[in-house]
Amino acid sequence: MLAPPPTAAAASRIPPLPPEAFEAWLRGEGALRYDDEHPFHARMQDGGLTRDEIRAWVRNRYYFQTRLAVADALVVAKAEDSAFRRAWLRRVVEHDGDVDGDGALAAWRRLGLAVGLDEGELARHDAVLPGVRFACDAYVELVRRATLAEAVATSLTEVFAPKVLARCIAAWETHYAWVPSEALLPFWLRLRVAGRDGAEALAFVRGAATTYEAQARCVAALVDRCEIAWHLLDCVQAASRVDTPPSPALALHAA
Amino acid sequence: MLAPPPTAAAASRIPPLPPEAFEAWLRGEGALRYDDEHPFHARMQDGGLTRDEIRAWVRNRYYFQTRLAVADALVVAKAEDSAFRRAWLRRVVEHDGDVDGDGALAAWRRLGLAVGLDEGELARHDAVLPGVRFACDAYVELVRRATLAEAVATSLTEVFAPKVLARCIAAWETHYAWVPSEALLPFWLRLRVAGRDGAEALAFVRGAATTYEAQARCVAALVDRCEIAWHLLDCVQAASRVDTPPSPALALHAA
Repeated sequence: MLAPPPTAAAASRIPPLPPEAFEAWLRGEGALRYDDEHPFHARMQDGGLTRDEIRAWVRNRYYFQTRLAVADALVVAKAEDSAFRRAWLRRVVEHDGDVDGDGALAAWRRLGLAVGLDEGELARHDAVLPGVRFACDAYVELVRRATLAEAVATSLTEVFAPKVLARCIAAWETHYAWVPSEALLPFWLRLRVAGRDGAEALAFVRGAATTYEAQARCVAALVDRCEIAWHLLDCVQAASRVDTPPSPALALHAA
Repeated sequence: MLAPPPTAAAASRIPPLPPEAFEAWLRGEGALRYDDEHPFHARMQDGGLTRDEIRAWVRNRYYFQTRLAVADALVVAKAEDSAFRRAWLRRVVEHDGDVDGDGALAAWRRLGLAVGLDEGELARHDAVLPGVRFACDAYVELVRRATLAEAVATSLTEVFAPKVLARCIAAWETHYAWVPSEALLPFWLRLRVAGRDGAEALAFVRGAATTYEAQARCVAALVDRCEIAWHLLDCVQAASRVDTPPSPALALHAA
């Protein structure tokens, strides 16, 4: 671009926000856009999803989980500091476990089997909705191109996750009792670490974004992450509506 | 991946299709998935779109047009052959023109103004729907990672474009007469070159994909392109439904 947009030029003249105000900005945007406000998520909480809708959500969300593992490895690769890498590597290990069958991704696959998906489909992701693929792949690209502070900021959804996860587990135990309790392990695993991960990421981003422009970019990165998770639910919801004819491409993709 | 999926292993043992059969495969998939079959497109043809829906489509489709220009430049950068680069460079020039105000992108911006969008918004793309952004950005990534043959295959939608464009111009002249005729220039510009571009790309892909696996990957690339265009319409349609509460993020994004 020959001339930067006026907003960027203006941003470079604004002094950085004090850390507390920056944190409040991040929390405000994150809370507003977190996908627990999505109508599909609300229906999940209220027990209104059919078994097919539960399957569609697990299938598509599992694809996002696999992208989160790649993104976390990209974050590790962005850091120059051993202590940071060591801390973030723990997140990759939490996805993959120490041995086969361990870790959150394996737990997600077991949840997939428990709701009636099959192993081959989970491995190939071939019934993932195109829009979900675009959004989740956009997350990997977002993290790939981001600065370290921006990449870490995309993980700040974890700040809001614990409350939502606790409600989510209760809703599944109550409304979807056809899913065995032990299959809900992915939610428990995330509940165990989300609070710590969120606090750690927030402390890092507060310290790392030292100009107003860097702060604004961290907020924008978090907004992008929220829009991606939101769009995932948009797509799952649209595909489950009987009044929306699915793309002929989708049917073939799934075949 | 430690073990390639069985389909890839099987594909490497299948002899290449004869060029005519390969072309028929490409044409079959493309015709089936081309976005003129989308309900939103059908409504556009039938005159059923409101002015706001026309605006939403132009705004979001214009973003795709800007990504097509980037993708065409990436295709040029993939080629090692002067004659190929020269031929494909013509497509970049068709987007950008020889002087300011010339070319398809400028014509799209004039269409945007004619339907009531404003210049700043068109330049910043800040009201483009998140799902459209993910899909259109996925197109650039698809082309970036593709082989030359696959990248060219993503342009084979042009094979089907002339018939659709001619119908589209007639529909706009009839049903959306509030849009001045001269604002329809983007459709005329594309109509002028689509047949030639499609035939040229088809001849290249036929010759360049010499194994079954390469042929299958070209078909998959074309399918991806069609899914992207389809998803753009999914998003525009979903955003225009009164019964779908838009993401709070969207409202702020547009503000």
